[in-house]
Amino acid sequence: MHLDSCGVITLMTDFGTNDHFVGVMKGVILNINPKIQIVDITHAVPPQDVHGAAFLIDSTYRYFPDGTIHVVVVDPGVGSQRRVIVCQTDTAYFVCPDNGVLSYVISEDTVHRVVELGNPDYWLSEVSNTFHGRDIFAPAAAHLSRGISLSQYGDAVNNVVRLPVHIPQVTNTTIVGSVIWVDHFGNLITNLTSDMLKSFGMDHGFVIRAGSAEISRLNRAYAESKIGECLAIMGSSGYLEISVNHGSAARVLGLKRNDAIEIHKI
Amino acid sequence: MHLDSCGVITLMTDFGTNDHFVGVMKGVILNINPKIQIVDITHAVPPQDVHGAAFLIDSTYRYFPDGTIHVVVVDPGVGSQRRVIVCQTDTAYFVCPDNGVLSYVISEDTVHRVVELGNPDYWLSEVSNTFHGRDIFAPAAAHLSRGISLSQYGDAVNNVVRLPVHIPQVTNTTIVGSVIWVDHFGNLITNLTSDMLKSFGMDHGFVIRAGSAEISRLNRAYAESKIGECLAIMGSSGYLEISVNHGSAARVLGLKRNDAIEIHKI
Amino acid sequence: MHLDSCGVITLMTDFGTNDHFVGVMKGVILNINPKIQIVDITHAVPPQDVHGAAFLIDSTYRYFPDGTIHVVVVDPGVGSQRRVIVCQTDTAYFVCPDNGVLSYVISEDTVHRVVELGNPDYWLSEVSNTFHGRDIFAPAAAHLSRGISLSQYGDAVNNVVRLPVHIPQVTNTTIVGSVIWVDHFGNLITNLTSDMLKSFGMDHGFVIRAGSAEISRLNRAYAESKIGECLAIMGSSGYLEISVNHGSAARVLGLKRNDAIEIHKI
Repeated sequence: MHLDSCGVITLMTDFGTNDHFVGVMKGVILNINPKIQIVDITHAVPPQDVHGAAFLIDSTYRYFPDGTIHVVVVDPGVGSQRRVIVCQTDTAYFVCPDNGVLSYVISEDTVHRVVELGNPDYWLSEVSNTFHGRDIFAPAAAHLSRGISLSQYGDAVNNVVRLPVHIPQVTNTTIVGSVIWVDHFGNLITNLTSDMLKSFGMDHGFVIRAGSAEISRLNRAYAESKIGECLAIMGSSGYLEISVNHGSAARVLGLKRNDAIEIHKI
Repeated sequence: MHLDSCGVITLMTDFGTNDHFVGVMKGVILNINPKIQIVDITHAVPPQDVHGAAFLIDSTYRYFPDGTIHVVVVDPGVGSQRRVIVCQTDTAYFVCPDNGVLSYVISEDTVHRVVELGNPDYWLSEVSNTFHGRDIFAPAAAHLSRGISLSQYGDAVNNVVRLPVHIPQVTNTTIVGSVIWVDHFGNLITNLTSDMLKSFGMDHGFVIRAGSAEISRLNRAYAESKIGECLAIMGSSGYLEISVNHGSAARVLGLKRNDAIEIHKI
Repeated sequence: MHLDSCGVITLMTDFGTNDHFVGVMKGVILNINPKIQIVDITHAVPPQDVHGAAFLIDSTYRYFPDGTIHVVVVDPGVGSQRRVIVCQTDTAYFVCPDNGVLSYVISEDTVHRVVELGNPDYWLSEVSNTFHGRDIFAPAAAHLSRGISLSQYGDAVNNVVRLPVHIPQVTNTTIVGSVIWVDHFGNLITNLTSDMLKSFGMDHGFVIRAGSAEISRLNRAYAESKIGECLAIMGSSGYLEISVNHGSAARVLGLKRNDAIEIHKI
């Protein structure tokens, strides 16, 4: 299947925005394709947090035009023998290290082709040990946006790395999920989807245990709860979220990534 | 009055830049109008700080080309019955919740039309409870940039919400204003304008009291004061500011938003 | 030598991204040249840190297309008599205060012409005392991108300000450099280049002293060291860096800018 670039490259990294790193990547891209539109997703992925980046890119890519090229550089193995890949799905391209950062994306979207970025023709002429975002990822993405075909980059990859993912544990009376992301507002995003809650069945009453909080209904808006109150709501990424109206659930409840969130029928 | 989009959409939110939220809004916009130029104003409005956003958008919009579309998403009422509006003034469009965030803008600029964003044709097909920035504000702004007329969006709104605004208190000998914004450098921006100070009359000597500081002249440059010294200066937004040369007035003086700044004739 | 604008303006400031300042500069630029592409390098230069900005712009500009206009606003002297300049080198334009921020750039690249931004035709019509980023730097850069020639701006400048720069001290057995930048990951970038280390000669064994750490080899990848271990590596800007694999060398070693890094032959 052929998929044309739509002229948009997105960038997600753990580089922060205090240094020149992200700006330099953009310079490299504009040098190769001056017509491209570059969009920052975030550069505040916690350093080396591949799992966090996997969640974020999955929550992002589906909202971009078909043919967008997503560059994800969270790359603790930079300079080692880890592979760098381009992955083409039904709707998008991903340029990233092969370290599991696509775990959520490829469990949902159809993967058409994955190749290794082995051909140095599409790298910068000098490659450093520490900044492949500039030297390999950015130029590879820019060339892709100009129509270079995947087969030019290198060999096909068949066994993309997948992270171990927490699967919610379900019994007749209980479902135990966990926090997969804490957002800027302190909302706790769980791995419990709307479909899971439906098939679990919560019509006859339930209690959600999130740290010290016990919550027995699902809100439809933050504003249905009092200011400062803990609440549960189906969040915008399709997962159950624990929030505090006008506050930070992470701080109020002392919860963080991987902590358990339980639902009990009553 | 007709006002053409100039092909620029600006974004101001309290979403922070640690998550995917802002990137996702840009994806939604580019899906509807791939030719648009998107400019970030800031995403670090303190969470739910409608008053702060009202000051920031007022300090910003007048510097953009006529026909710019400003999207302001500081929206503690998301998911409740609060209205979402598009406001057309002499020179710009604003897409925002009707919660007072335009209080400063509409007290200065002529408002031509305000409509409610009631027509779901210009939303995403699925609307979440918690992320109207993605589902309603972004698509509405993108459609506006393609020339959809305001009347398509929904009913006219006549009573736009206005925040209570601190008005400086003036007597013959004293003027009492307050801090309306503390910037990144720790400068304290007050609500005292150049015109107010002129009609108050400060030619025969005055003292400005800002916390423990007493300041008896207006600087024309930071560098007129010694490093570490408190000073008063007419700031770039047209308001009197209290600063510390090479330092943070907010930290040195322990002052924050809404704290009083007094000027006494002597 | 003539150098055409390539349609890209970059911005580097110490304004942070919490306020409207950077957005306003972009509005001013788009008002003058709606076709320009604006790229943020960073707005988190520590307040008034001219030396830091000098390092960052030097690490950045060479990766951008020829004819890029780089605007650097780290300007503790705003409102004083300090000069504002445009500098044209072999490959790029720089618009900045004449305070030393180009010290690294002009020690490497050929300077073709420097002029003072003295002609108010290329400023905003009203100029504040405190925000020349908006009133002078942004409009000057935007006019430059439309092809205004340097001679229109003002008089030639011959004595550009240069910062005092730490020069590594070398003997037969020891080389003493210093930290010139600490990046987002806590990596300590020194002023020791690959060429210096080669001519010093490290083939027969050496020890690098960085605070309490003693390091006796150069890594080719972070992953060659254990997690948490201190290491030395040639960094992406061409300087020796002290790092901690998966950690912050700055925090682990308690080192900061200007601290000494020594190499002893053994």
